[in-house]
Amino acid sequence: GSGLNEAEFLEYGRDRLAQFHPDFDLLLLPDNPDEVVAVVRYCKEHNLALVPSGGRTGLAGGAVAGQGEIVLSLGRMNRVLEFQPRLPAIRCEAGVITAELQRYAAEQGFCFPLDLAAAGSSQIGGNIATNAGGTRVIRYGMLRDWIVGLKVVTGAGDVLTFPGGILKNNTGPDLKHAFIGSEGIYGIILEATIRLAIAPRQPTTVLIGVPDIDVAQVILQELRRQGMQPLAFEFFDQGCLEIVREHLNVAEPFREPVPGYVLLEWDAAEFDFDDAVTMFAGMEERHLIRALRPATSSTQSAELWRLREGISESISMTRHVRKYDVSLPAECFAGFQANVIALCRDMAHVYPVFFGHLGDGNLHVNIVSSGAESRRTGDSHEFMEDTGNIDMEIYKLIGSLNGSISAEHGIGLLKKDYLHLSRSAVEIDYMRQLKSVFDPAGILNPGKVIPD
Amino acid sequence: GSGLNEAEFLEYGRDRLAQFHPDFDLLLLPDNPDEVVAVVRYCKEHNLALVPSGGRTGLAGGAVAGQGEIVLSLGRMNRVLEFQPRLPAIRCEAGVITAELQRYAAEQGFCFPLDLAAAGSSQIGGNIATNAGGTRVIRYGMLRDWIVGLKVVTGAGDVLTFPGGILKNNTGPDLKHAFIGSEGIYGIILEATIRLAIAPRQPTTVLIGVPDIDVAQVILQELRRQGMQPLAFEFFDQGCLEIVREHLNVAEPFREPVPGYVLLEWDAAEFDFDDAVTMFAGMEERHLIRALRPATSSTQSAELWRLREGISESISMTRHVRKYDVSLPAECFAGFQANVIALCRDMAHVYPVFFGHLGDGNLHVNIVSSGAESRRTGDSHEFMEDTGNIDMEIYKLIGSLNGSISAEHGIGLLKKDYLHLSRSAVEIDYMRQLKSVFDPAGILNPGKVIPD
Repeated sequence: GSGLNEAEFLEYGRDRLAQFHPDFDLLLLPDNPDEVVAVVRYCKEHNLALVPSGGRTGLAGGAVAGQGEIVLSLGRMNRVLEFQPRLPAIRCEAGVITAELQRYAAEQGFCFPLDLAAAGSSQIGGNIATNAGGTRVIRYGMLRDWIVGLKVVTGAGDVLTFPGGILKNNTGPDLKHAFIGSEGIYGIILEATIRLAIAPRQPTTVLIGVPDIDVAQVILQELRRQGMQPLAFEFFDQGCLEIVREHLNVAEPFREPVPGYVLLEWDAAEFDFDDAVTMFAGMEERHLIRALRPATSSTQSAELWRLREGISESISMTRHVRKYDVSLPAECFAGFQANVIALCRDMAHVYPVFFGHLGDGNLHVNIVSSGAESRRTGDSHEFMEDTGNIDMEIYKLIGSLNGSISAEHGIGLLKKDYLHLSRSAVEIDYMRQLKSVFDPAGILNPGKVIPD
Repeated sequence: GSGLNEAEFLEYGRDRLAQFHPDFDLLLLPDNPDEVVAVVRYCKEHNLALVPSGGRTGLAGGAVAGQGEIVLSLGRMNRVLEFQPRLPAIRCEAGVITAELQRYAAEQGFCFPLDLAAAGSSQIGGNIATNAGGTRVIRYGMLRDWIVGLKVVTGAGDVLTFPGGILKNNTGPDLKHAFIGSEGIYGIILEATIRLAIAPRQPTTVLIGVPDIDVAQVILQELRRQGMQPLAFEFFDQGCLEIVREHLNVAEPFREPVPGYVLLEWDAAEFDFDDAVTMFAGMEERHLIRALRPATSSTQSAELWRLREGISESISMTRHVRKYDVSLPAECFAGFQANVIALCRDMAHVYPVFFGHLGDGNLHVNIVSSGAESRRTGDSHEFMEDTGNIDMEIYKLIGSLNGSISAEHGIGLLKKDYLHLSRSAVEIDYMRQLKSVFDPAGILNPGKVIPD
């Protein structure tokens, strides 16, 4: 017995994927880095497996403790340690909630470069360990690019401190990148210094109706050539909008439905609003844009964002679903979409919807159950069985297009059997060799990421 | 005999540091990646040392072949392979000259994110292997952040291909970062895909006179808080300006000399010129700014840039010099400067000048010979002997401030004995362990970066 009640047991033993069953006996909640280091060294000596645990908002099973591991939660190490106005940057412990850092940065007059749906409960250490993406990647890049300093303990029990006060440090190989995005298999993040971005002065939102996903990308290309640097360029198709409208009871944004929707945000202090409107008008004439709705207030902007941000929740509340987090070369999306639609056509009561960070070449593809008989009230197990073969079909398709089977969610337990479709055998072998270097006893998050 | 004449021998056997003497017998100029891979595999099997060689514009001896190694020049692999308009990105071979990529990007309506003094002869492969910095880092970050795809051959002879068509690929540890900035000790870069930036629309340059280096940083902090994102924020002191004026015979930029000069560039299409002028006026009132000279044409802008870009050349043509490439936490620069001045005061005919990328927390400190008797016509050997002890003093000072002994130039042969001042013993040991993983026979650039 772990001394935890059932809710706590489920809470600490897995992430949001929730498809794996927890099985662990011990939960540790260290209060400071020294305690974490002591735990790692003890576990190394006694060959005890550890699962590092942040906000557990992952979607790939990376934080599942299902084989009697010890869960090591960083949640009590949640102090903001320092604001460095001249970089500018924040230094903090691994367990700080991401939204807390967003608030802190805004108070200092800057912008935290990371925003994602889980910001309210994800922790920065977990975000770094998974190289988190989200809605600001198009402007700021992945979280990796903003990490200045890092303090980690390796599986061997060594503490590595990468200095947080300096932006440039070309003194040989930069080892901190081995830990960013490694999902806790090489080391545990204890502390980080994250650079802050200049805050946009007049964020401006428009919803654009487009004939298809390919045209959406042509539009982005033209905006960039004219000098616009979008803050967001999010896509969703008519299928997504229908589910959102049904679940959240919101109105149709345009007079009539269009095949695809782009939520564009940019800083009108950087790129003049009237110049943008002139560009849009030209694109309407050329039939690239079918409909346009600018937000004229922050309330209207929030309403438009709700259409995009409500998608995941609306799907999980009303449908059975299989989710894919796909990166592809930009020119492959239209063909990929057609292929996935064709795959689903062969199955009864199932269809795909497409949404996500199109500006980053990253879509979240959801295969959902159609019709009333297969709603959440129906049998999820049956849906998963009926659609069981589609995973491999979709992952193979992605592999054949030189895409990524996990653009931002990571590999965890969920996708490790498909890893070879995005990474070569020799590369996976190097991952294994680095595991032997950084975690020779194999105590950190065993069974995750690297196939057996 | 290598069959090379003396000029070719010196050209291919060392970099711009020129303080080490080449000693090699064989120069290879492969024409394609397969040939490079074949050479590496052959050398691994027969235990032959290789020095990967790009444009040899480095300043740390990273490309020196001084122990009978084989020089492997990538210079003939200089094809631009593909433009990807939707990322946007360029895919090219390792030997393409950096300025060529700048031109190519501009032709496509975008901006190559890297610019540095050596752009006319440095090769992109070498730039990646040293994670090059330069004058655009303040806006775009180091080159590392712009590398999408990479093809490398490890010292073990394995080819790793990191896909260049996708921006997001969270499929476990991202191994390409082991090769970026590793100075050729883990692998040889064969091909790269580099993202392009949105081109600035109205680049605008002003020269600002400041009372000292600390105030310069306060000015930057205020500009950023107001929402300005500089394209450049370069510093030089009065000592630098005197040497440039003497060598290039240019006029004093202000009515009277000031202690420090900041060359600020920003995009006036993003941040209004008149708003900036109002800010500057407020700073003049508060005595942060002593003098201001805006460039009102591209000719005037080029004249201002010449003051900054002429420094290195003017110093090497007129003085003996010891160079340091220093990163420090921003608030430490004023104290560091005072300490270096004090160190030099103890030596005859020697003084320091300070210039560089202050906005990145990176200064190039040059200790130069003063007075006519120690000009280039004097004895360089004598100068180096007289000032021999200062290296360790300066590096120790940097280490004590948690700075970097090499912000952008790398370690090479020149600084490996000081590496422990910027990296911990356990970290250096991990570098060594990764060397065993990626280059088990130790054939790639032996003796560089990692201390013996």
